[in-house]
Amino acid sequence: MSLDALLEGIARTQNPTVAGLDPKLDFIPAFIKECAFAQYGETLEGAAAAILEYNKGLIDALCEIVPAVKPQAAYYEMYGTEGVKVLYETQKYAREKGMYVITDGKRNDIGTTMEAYAVAHLGKVKVGSKEYCPFLGDALTVNGYLGTDGIKPLIQVCNEYDKGIFVLAKTSNPSSGELQDKLIDGMPVYEMMGRMCENWGKELMGKYGYSGVGIVAGATYPEQIAELRAKLPETFFLIPGYGAQGASAKDISAAFDKNGLGGIVNSSRGIMCAYKKEGCDEKDYAGAAYREAVRMRDEIMSFVGEIKLPN
Amino acid sequence: MSLDALLEGIARTQNPTVAGLDPKLDFIPAFIKECAFAQYGETLEGAAAAILEYNKGLIDALCEIVPAVKPQAAYYEMYGTEGVKVLYETQKYAREKGMYVITDGKRNDIGTTMEAYAVAHLGKVKVGSKEYCPFLGDALTVNGYLGTDGIKPLIQVCNEYDKGIFVLAKTSNPSSGELQDKLIDGMPVYEMMGRMCENWGKELMGKYGYSGVGIVAGATYPEQIAELRAKLPETFFLIPGYGAQGASAKDISAAFDKNGLGGIVNSSRGIMCAYKKEGCDEKDYAGAAYREAVRMRDEIMSFVGEIKLPN
Repeated sequence: MSLDALLEGIARTQNPTVAGLDPKLDFIPAFIKECAFAQYGETLEGAAAAILEYNKGLIDALCEIVPAVKPQAAYYEMYGTEGVKVLYETQKYAREKGMYVITDGKRNDIGTTMEAYAVAHLGKVKVGSKEYCPFLGDALTVNGYLGTDGIKPLIQVCNEYDKGIFVLAKTSNPSSGELQDKLIDGMPVYEMMGRMCENWGKELMGKYGYSGVGIVAGATYPEQIAELRAKLPETFFLIPGYGAQGASAKDISAAFDKNGLGGIVNSSRGIMCAYKKEGCDEKDYAGAAYREAVRMRDEIMSFVGEIKLPN
Repeated sequence: MSLDALLEGIARTQNPTVAGLDPKLDFIPAFIKECAFAQYGETLEGAAAAILEYNKGLIDALCEIVPAVKPQAAYYEMYGTEGVKVLYETQKYAREKGMYVITDGKRNDIGTTMEAYAVAHLGKVKVGSKEYCPFLGDALTVNGYLGTDGIKPLIQVCNEYDKGIFVLAKTSNPSSGELQDKLIDGMPVYEMMGRMCENWGKELMGKYGYSGVGIVAGATYPEQIAELRAKLPETFFLIPGYGAQGASAKDISAAFDKNGLGGIVNSSRGIMCAYKKEGCDEKDYAGAAYREAVRMRDEIMSFVGEIKLPN
């Protein structure tokens, strides 16, 4: 699905948020782990089974009201090849439920190697006369430190398969400024990266005014979000840092344009671990995730107003 | 194994090179693919079986004379979860043969997510009361765009498990300068990144004068290599770009110190596809890889001289 499909999902649900799926075992209710370990033992297979069960419960609860999921590759790789299988199964399940899938892998390399990542996460690979989807992302997060050589192969694959990317510009962490805020000819690195994205995006324009080359812009830096929104009118924002990392809905409001489009706000732990914060029965973890997703949507929409797709 | 173990391997073999394992199906001799497809069909399983067979042949041929391998994660992810299994199996096989394993993943993220990548590729993960190695790298390439928050979790895991990282500083590609050569307060970004690595490395010093926080410095930029060697005396270099990307042994010579230490030079396609260039029987692909590895070693050693571990 192209980035346009994500915008349509956001408009349909009137909800510019994405549920991050970062399934550490610590986040998963004990009853799910016990059941998985009873079947597979305390093994990587057992961990993987628990994660998949947990993710499916979350996706079932959220798919009607949240337009997208963002599985974070690190948490699947952490459980080895069994975990990576669950990344695939999670992507597949979320797609079947109509959700847009942003694979958060922050991949980066050059030339044919970047092409391999693009094929892996957004395209199809040829094996003899057959073709397969290695993974099932609709978009992939990437790191632009290597410049155009690292991005062009992605654009090609995105064009061929109708996919998108989000390039790190201003990340949400405290030390993001060590490099990203530094000035190059008077312009901060994050802005320079953003402008490169706006430029790369010309080759991947969608029908609602935003290109398939988005950026990552952390909610924890509201001034930079406002500045980037003004300077990058065709660039869509993936916005981490809401909730657990301390940013509020107001901090994010500048990301949105007059149609209520322009960004999608991620919450991972806030939604996944809502049952812990709420203190409800852990068997109701998916219900708690739903309630937190509604609360987050309502809070953000109070600043966004109505979301309309432009003609 | 710590970075010290890599230096010991380099001294033992008198060979400061690493064989990149970037197994595109196109690189693999037809007889291996035919055999794998006969057993598994033209499937991802078939592709994975062919890649593993090919890699094992290369490792068998190289393990006595080349101290390290560098599997590039992208080429394994390109064949889906079956491919990722082969990444693990390749790492395992190379280790059994005494080779140092550099996982080329260019991973990057922050806080607990970066910790998950560190655990995935360099550490052990807890599942209930048990512990497992998700993957089997001795070192991991990483991208430092996110600053210290993205590196500290790695240092911790490296200290705990005696591992190393290589952070992208000056990459070998033509567009690497778009960001990396830009000046910040008069200092190019690649140097600033290198200095951050030299500083992060203080927490991971080895016994031969180099820390476990290395950098990636492309052979295609010999002046920058010389400059970085002078400015970063405790930082070890992983050097891509030799051969297929156009750099010569002379271009790289400035990376080495008076003991012949200081860097390790990668060749991927040059070694993997030596049988194509040589025009030999493809069944002798491993022999051709061996001959190319010897040629490359001799060419580089003609500039390095003898390699000695300092007392």
